[in-house]
Amino acid sequence: MLSAETEVRVRYAETDAMGIVHHGSYIPWLEVGRIHLLDTLGLPYSEMEKQGYRLPVLRVSLQYRSPAHFDERVRVMAKLETLPAVRFQIHYLLQRGESLLADGFTEHAFVGSDGYPIRPPAHFRERIKALWPKLK
Amino acid sequence: MLSAETEVRVRYAETDAMGIVHHGSYIPWLEVGRIHLLDTLGLPYSEMEKQGYRLPVLRVSLQYRSPAHFDERVRVMAKLETLPAVRFQIHYLLQRGESLLADGFTEHAFVGSDGYPIRPPAHFRERIKALWPKLK
Amino acid sequence: MLSAETEVRVRYAETDAMGIVHHGSYIPWLEVGRIHLLDTLGLPYSEMEKQGYRLPVLRVSLQYRSPAHFDERVRVMAKLETLPAVRFQIHYLLQRGESLLADGFTEHAFVGSDGYPIRPPAHFRERIKALWPKLK
Amino acid sequence: MLSAETEVRVRYAETDAMGIVHHGSYIPWLEVGRIHLLDTLGLPYSEMEKQGYRLPVLRVSLQYRSPAHFDERVRVMAKLETLPAVRFQIHYLLQRGESLLADGFTEHAFVGSDGYPIRPPAHFRERIKALWPKLK
Repeated sequence: MLSAETEVRVRYAETDAMGIVHHGSYIPWLEVGRIHLLDTLGLPYSEMEKQGYRLPVLRVSLQYRSPAHFDERVRVMAKLETLPAVRFQIHYLLQRGESLLADGFTEHAFVGSDGYPIRPPAHFRERIKALWPKLK
Repeated sequence: MLSAETEVRVRYAETDAMGIVHHGSYIPWLEVGRIHLLDTLGLPYSEMEKQGYRLPVLRVSLQYRSPAHFDERVRVMAKLETLPAVRFQIHYLLQRGESLLADGFTEHAFVGSDGYPIRPPAHFRERIKALWPKLK
Repeated sequence: MLSAETEVRVRYAETDAMGIVHHGSYIPWLEVGRIHLLDTLGLPYSEMEKQGYRLPVLRVSLQYRSPAHFDERVRVMAKLETLPAVRFQIHYLLQRGESLLADGFTEHAFVGSDGYPIRPPAHFRERIKALWPKLK
Repeated sequence: MLSAETEVRVRYAETDAMGIVHHGSYIPWLEVGRIHLLDTLGLPYSEMEKQGYRLPVLRVSLQYRSPAHFDERVRVMAKLETLPAVRFQIHYLLQRGESLLADGFTEHAFVGSDGYPIRPPAHFRERIKALWPKLK
């Protein structure tokens, strides 16, 4: 497993008329966590885009356990639980202090310049393998 | 099954730098479809809120099949596949013409004035039962 | 003056913890009104993009007069008050029934394939002139 | 003048199909800068809300000078240029390195529990006066 944790501070724009964070506002937070995970792995997404790869989201699944509110700090942990194949998942835990706010996953596939799904680029696979705990 | 269909027109603000609609932008569209379904059932959400009930989202699960683009019209079909219990799901199909763009579900529970999950209000249950095809 | 009016229905995602529409949510509504105005003039923005022109926003100025709420219908009127030069403004009136909710303008310039501001394309200028009331 | 500076990192969700940050995405960044300014002054907005005050936005005016892109760091400087009266403005400078990306202001008034504009609360005025450079 490879994981990384970052933090977001809840923006007023992310709340809704229930007085809590709108469920849709969590989706960009998952992205923040995912981008941070890729940074931590030495595979920044902006670099991959420059090399012609994209990593669109094929699926989102998120369970909301406890509401978040304006100005709270939310820790976003993103993790790779298995070595990425053509399709792979990134899992998330969102917490405020010890409270679990939400957990779930996104599913991804790399897409090449022709717009079709491809295997993860060699550079990406090698880097992940090099960092993977069990394979070290 | 009870269902309703409405349409959204893609806003430029809903696209991202991949040139397609950002995956997070679909979440408010599910909401548009859900609100429209409740309207169609004679159970407008704004009325339920006035009566002290809220219907937060407990889970989102969405699969992205084909990208949407600026200015396209996307049909959003929302449907109740089973009679709502304490927790219940609303399913969605998003289509452009005959193309399936995305499908998935949201999970909900009614919450009362004390913030705790409750059974769907009597008015809601009776209305759904009265409209339910098999029970007519 | 050339103008067009369309309507948006307030999404829950557009509200905030004050129980009203977040001020940032109006910006995409201006865009909806602007896109509709261009449609009405026979100059759909998606066509202009295909021809290699873009029309970025150089300035936004908006005054909030009265709050909007979930599920309300907001009429968005967009208008061209002067013949477009290199820089030009589109003005907006946002109303719910007879109530003025907000008014303001956006400023724009066409940008060509090299990314630099250019005069409005000939097709655009001729179309606007042909429709302009005083010049008919 | 009282000012404070913070930084946002551009989210993919904040970009649009032009490949740059959507103009509407800057509005929550102004909010991030404003909230940070109030924190710095010892007047956190979440505290003011708990005391029954709200500080809605009455006007937004923003000029876009140069586009921002995914993953860039944008510094947001918010400043009070005059002592707040019933209506007051907060000014903003958004920069990436030495490049000016945008500048503008928001206008605000405190609103009390009855929803009507009021003078800034005594605590707020005293705190600002105590910190104001010329009045020290």
